[in-house]
Amino acid sequence: MTDRMKPRRISRVLIVGKRGSAAARPAIRRVARLVEARGLRVFFDPETARALGRGARRGNPASADLVVVVGGDGTLLSAARWLAGHPRPILGINLGGLGFMTETGPEEAEPVLLEVLAGHYSVSRRMTLDATLMRGRRAIARQVVLNDVVIAKSALARMIDLEVTIDGDEVTTYRADGLIVSTPTGSTAYSLSAGGPIIHPEMAALLIAPICPHTLTMRPLVVPAGARVELSLTTGDSEVYLTLDGQVGHPLRGGDRVRVRRGVSPVLMVRSRRQSHYEVLRRKLRWGER
Amino acid sequence: MTDRMKPRRISRVLIVGKRGSAAARPAIRRVARLVEARGLRVFFDPETARALGRGARRGNPASADLVVVVGGDGTLLSAARWLAGHPRPILGINLGGLGFMTETGPEEAEPVLLEVLAGHYSVSRRMTLDATLMRGRRAIARQVVLNDVVIAKSALARMIDLEVTIDGDEVTTYRADGLIVSTPTGSTAYSLSAGGPIIHPEMAALLIAPICPHTLTMRPLVVPAGARVELSLTTGDSEVYLTLDGQVGHPLRGGDRVRVRRGVSPVLMVRSRRQSHYEVLRRKLRWGER
Amino acid sequence: MTDRMKPRRISRVLIVGKRGSAAARPAIRRVARLVEARGLRVFFDPETARALGRGARRGNPASADLVVVVGGDGTLLSAARWLAGHPRPILGINLGGLGFMTETGPEEAEPVLLEVLAGHYSVSRRMTLDATLMRGRRAIARQVVLNDVVIAKSALARMIDLEVTIDGDEVTTYRADGLIVSTPTGSTAYSLSAGGPIIHPEMAALLIAPICPHTLTMRPLVVPAGARVELSLTTGDSEVYLTLDGQVGHPLRGGDRVRVRRGVSPVLMVRSRRQSHYEVLRRKLRWGER
Amino acid sequence: MTDRMKPRRISRVLIVGKRGSAAARPAIRRVARLVEARGLRVFFDPETARALGRGARRGNPASADLVVVVGGDGTLLSAARWLAGHPRPILGINLGGLGFMTETGPEEAEPVLLEVLAGHYSVSRRMTLDATLMRGRRAIARQVVLNDVVIAKSALARMIDLEVTIDGDEVTTYRADGLIVSTPTGSTAYSLSAGGPIIHPEMAALLIAPICPHTLTMRPLVVPAGARVELSLTTGDSEVYLTLDGQVGHPLRGGDRVRVRRGVSPVLMVRSRRQSHYEVLRRKLRWGER
Repeated sequence: MTDRMKPRRISRVLIVGKRGSAAARPAIRRVARLVEARGLRVFFDPETARALGRGARRGNPASADLVVVVGGDGTLLSAARWLAGHPRPILGINLGGLGFMTETGPEEAEPVLLEVLAGHYSVSRRMTLDATLMRGRRAIARQVVLNDVVIAKSALARMIDLEVTIDGDEVTTYRADGLIVSTPTGSTAYSLSAGGPIIHPEMAALLIAPICPHTLTMRPLVVPAGARVELSLTTGDSEVYLTLDGQVGHPLRGGDRVRVRRGVSPVLMVRSRRQSHYEVLRRKLRWGER
Repeated sequence: MTDRMKPRRISRVLIVGKRGSAAARPAIRRVARLVEARGLRVFFDPETARALGRGARRGNPASADLVVVVGGDGTLLSAARWLAGHPRPILGINLGGLGFMTETGPEEAEPVLLEVLAGHYSVSRRMTLDATLMRGRRAIARQVVLNDVVIAKSALARMIDLEVTIDGDEVTTYRADGLIVSTPTGSTAYSLSAGGPIIHPEMAALLIAPICPHTLTMRPLVVPAGARVELSLTTGDSEVYLTLDGQVGHPLRGGDRVRVRRGVSPVLMVRSRRQSHYEVLRRKLRWGER
Repeated sequence: MTDRMKPRRISRVLIVGKRGSAAARPAIRRVARLVEARGLRVFFDPETARALGRGARRGNPASADLVVVVGGDGTLLSAARWLAGHPRPILGINLGGLGFMTETGPEEAEPVLLEVLAGHYSVSRRMTLDATLMRGRRAIARQVVLNDVVIAKSALARMIDLEVTIDGDEVTTYRADGLIVSTPTGSTAYSLSAGGPIIHPEMAALLIAPICPHTLTMRPLVVPAGARVELSLTTGDSEVYLTLDGQVGHPLRGGDRVRVRRGVSPVLMVRSRRQSHYEVLRRKLRWGER
Repeated sequence: MTDRMKPRRISRVLIVGKRGSAAARPAIRRVARLVEARGLRVFFDPETARALGRGARRGNPASADLVVVVGGDGTLLSAARWLAGHPRPILGINLGGLGFMTETGPEEAEPVLLEVLAGHYSVSRRMTLDATLMRGRRAIARQVVLNDVVIAKSALARMIDLEVTIDGDEVTTYRADGLIVSTPTGSTAYSLSAGGPIIHPEMAALLIAPICPHTLTMRPLVVPAGARVELSLTTGDSEVYLTLDGQVGHPLRGGDRVRVRRGVSPVLMVRSRRQSHYEVLRRKLRWGER
């Protein structure tokens, strides 16, 4: 069932480091040395190159065969957004613990990296979302996300009204703290806290989960990946924000609409061994411990 | 997004009535007269034919262009199982109120039926599940369902242990009152009461929802429609049953396995007008009423 | 089971109107005329007196036998806070629809009011919460609430860490969108949307419900009314607010503590007839409709 | 907040062992030797006395100062029922792991027991429920429980209708898999799996939690401990059972009523040290692990 593609030969490796983290630099240098020791070419995203200084080459995703992200799930999300339109296999090396998206923690990073560089890996293809914020007829922001598009009220407002349509059909007006539109990958992120189901990350589907809905019968909805979802903020007086992958925020006004549809390019996550989706769930959610 | 197929010309109509319901007979006869008045050929499932007596023709699904089910969601589920392997458009006429699956209640039945007979309809294609009960190496029961496959303990037992694998990968062992494997169509049936999400009925996906799980982190899982799900009952001492579409029950023994995979044929539900999935949800779940 | 007190003879009536609502004035004047027509003395809260002008007497809660609140649940909550320390029977007349707390909608307001003025009523005694915001050793805000004390992150922050102790015992550190400490009366307000239970409004108990907790096993807690609950914000970098009865907001800093304990005085809600708590639930939550 | 009573001097100790468990005998004998070594008198419940043979004295609860239960939460529940009417301090020694109710696991059993025998303990007072099954005018079963009274359908029936009244007031008719009426102690047992809140075990309250309710707005209810709850089974055709503390089952018929009210005597659980309720929750629900 797992969606895999034939790995291609790796000769150029782009390393993306955690932003503004001095603590990440030794790990980034260690990864760079390992790659160079195998005779492969290494380069860095502009910010990491600047942070490393001393002749660190910068490069762009289009010329990479593999992207290695050194950081946590957050760094991987930004890297995935930066790569939008250039789907390249991404290997996530977590600096502390282990995330849902990063493939390996710091202890096992070296053997995993060597395996991957040797071409022993598969790729997990993850759909993305393309979100556009419309104010009147103008698109005032647009972003590709791997996890979720969230509209939520500020702490001081009590409830917001969000009118939702799918493919032009009215769904309902949610009176809630907010609403999450998530990819399958994002179903184990914020949506899970809001009561959403866990969707297999390689599926094509959208998940719409209300945050603290006023109407108790409003359950999370799973809809086809091709659905065109439009959220309109009908309340105008309270502080409401659009958040993309938990990282980019836009204040919203009454009448603003957020259009969400499937992103054109997938994100390609590198899997070094046969570790099933369910094994990750068991470990992260502590299933089976009694 | 809605999956529609070109309706074909209708000339032979199979009517399936609610089992053992004398109250359904006048409605069945009314439907039969309406169809015959348009010069179309009418026949009945064997049981309905017997109940009507007086020369009611019996026939089988293979020779029908349209199946009209007169009854509730339960009658439609049995009819769908009976039709397994002969996907024919099914129009559900509910005798009381309106179900999730039946297209029309008794008041509007006549105009809806005339529209459909005139070829003005679309078809909503619903995936099915094929469930096999294995005891050792023997398949002791097999059934196609439209809603769900449920394994549940009897009222007297407290908890059961169900080991679940998907495509051979271990998922976890659920300690719970039971487990529901549901189609998207079934996501608004029992699974909804157990805390499951609402899946668009025309999607291809399986939903696995535990009933009162002992481990609070065990959330409903949505997996690809092609997944091969196997449930093994590891507890041996308590009374446990397999229920298919809420209608057929089998007592289980420790060691029994239930294999679930996508059914070969879909069920084709007739939609007379453009009534969106979300409109049905709003009405049934009373969204938007304040 | 219902807690009732012997109603005392009513001779002085304080009317509290919805703030800044010109639309409420005709209803306020109607209530005033009805009370005066029975030879009883009427006076108003300062703001309503000012809004009515033309010799409307202002008065304070201490000299009232009955307080009539004309507005919605929000107006009743402010009135209850204003009355803190002067428990007087409060009759809520809702201007639109019917709230959980207001006793009557606009249509039945007149007969209900006449019954109450004639002494035909009982009183539902509701516990309150007394919340103090501590920054270092200083109490920088203090408020009595009837519904809830909420600490919640702004829309842009992802998660906050709230360390909770009860009677000095560590409970846990909640990583969540926020936390609600609610009275039984407040259990049908915000807490219900966050997944909390419904507590009989005349019970003595505190309810602690996390909002979108990161740890899925963190369930709502019901603790004795005498519990001293302390919430400490351990995260310092994100925007977090304290909200009291959904109306008063304070920005919080890392290290701030919120102390919650039972309020000294109850709020006394007037009930004109024998309408059980469960009847209100059935109507508001649409139980029993199929 | 914890309800504690002055411990009285212990001179006679009743030991209750796990039924039919040969494996429990060495632990039971070890406990008996420890008690006798301190010059105290030991006796056993009839079944344990019979199992031990060789002059093991049997005795009844009325003449004991302390009851030591050797087994799990289940053994403690039966012992508590057997003691109904003779509230004696009960110390639970778990044979494997640690339960919600048992005070100590096997490793620490000896030091804990010595502390308790020396009078260093407090008592946690737990309310009980008294359940009566009425068929017409006859009470056909009656039982005191510490955890819960459960009415649930068999695995083959789909839904049952349970009409609930509290103090004679109609609550609603639950259409569900079943209904749990639980004590605060029972709130961490079956009710938790059904979505109920966690109630402080020393509170006086009843918890009513539906199992898989058909109506999604039916949330768990917390009502005063003095409430007289009556559940009537209005469906007559399906297999439904009454289960008491998960151990005693009665088949129900349509029209049967189950009356639940607070039990006359509490159960007194021995607490050897100051281990808060919240510490037990953290450990059992794995709060705080990341």
